[in-house]
Amino acid sequence: MKFCSHCGSDKIQSKVPDGDNRARFCCPDCDTIFYENPKIVTGCVVTCEDKVLLCKRAIEPRLGLWTLPAGFMENNETVQQGAARETYEEATATVTEMSLFTVYNLTHISQVYMIFRAQLDKPEASPGIESLETEFVSEADIPWDELAFPVINETLELFFADRKAGEFKVHHGEITRLADRSLRTTRY
Amino acid sequence: MKFCSHCGSDKIQSKVPDGDNRARFCCPDCDTIFYENPKIVTGCVVTCEDKVLLCKRAIEPRLGLWTLPAGFMENNETVQQGAARETYEEATATVTEMSLFTVYNLTHISQVYMIFRAQLDKPEASPGIESLETEFVSEADIPWDELAFPVINETLELFFADRKAGEFKVHHGEITRLADRSLRTTRY
Repeated sequence: MKFCSHCGSDKIQSKVPDGDNRARFCCPDCDTIFYENPKIVTGCVVTCEDKVLLCKRAIEPRLGLWTLPAGFMENNETVQQGAARETYEEATATVTEMSLFTVYNLTHISQVYMIFRAQLDKPEASPGIESLETEFVSEADIPWDELAFPVINETLELFFADRKAGEFKVHHGEITRLADRSLRTTRY
Repeated sequence: MKFCSHCGSDKIQSKVPDGDNRARFCCPDCDTIFYENPKIVTGCVVTCEDKVLLCKRAIEPRLGLWTLPAGFMENNETVQQGAARETYEEATATVTEMSLFTVYNLTHISQVYMIFRAQLDKPEASPGIESLETEFVSEADIPWDELAFPVINETLELFFADRKAGEFKVHHGEITRLADRSLRTTRY
């Protein structure tokens, strides 16, 4: 942030406002304080019979790798509506009933993943504009080394473990970047 | 948003970018697109024996009304850490073990409330800078007409109903502003 989006000042500075305890971008000319907060990424583990719907990414980052349909929640929608919207946008699949499955904190990039479970009666899906391919994949065929993000690996591992155990829970956890740039996954 | 925070241009316009389906603030001079997304409000229903911790607000909006300790999640923290931080900042109470209790969508103001349950062994709390008073209140003494926000009424109603039923669940719901400006609460 170089300029104040309110008054156009070029004197924006990062400082701790009075009564606050964190640095924020502040405009000394119009006194506006700019807050930055985490974003919710919402999406679905969509199943049809024993298979899970995966999408091959048509966009960066991780173009060409496989993911679950998910994306940034938008203003004026519910988390569930966002998950259904992303599932439609990325895989042209229409989900209705959804159950919360994971809440994962990606603290290093200030994202909270909220992934829901949903079922389809028929394997009806096709690539939306952000996907190259969609495919319903059985557990044995999951391309574990070609998944786009660690949180996707984690979500699918939890999903198959719960399915095997015969009970789906709501899982909480965290993926953090360590000093050596590696990622650590913690299940609460 | 009147000025581009990246290049200072005063030509910011709200339009649907190529390949998108929603209006965003766009800068025609440096091509930056500015996305706005919902914020998470995180907090706790803190109990000590049969009483719930309430805070009387020292700040607007709703100064002087009672609320649960809760506030905007910050970057680089987990939702749980945010709930514990807010509980400390507003009530100087230290909570550790937390269980997710509600996920409520306030679509008209693009907020997602994530409220956790937590317990204290001793009723140790005192007002932080954003509170005038803190108090542990039994169900019979909840000031239902002096609660700060409808989502707080809803959360406490769900809490006491679950406690009576002997089982705490994770609740999902939505509070929406209707055309006549009234609010509608929906439990999923």
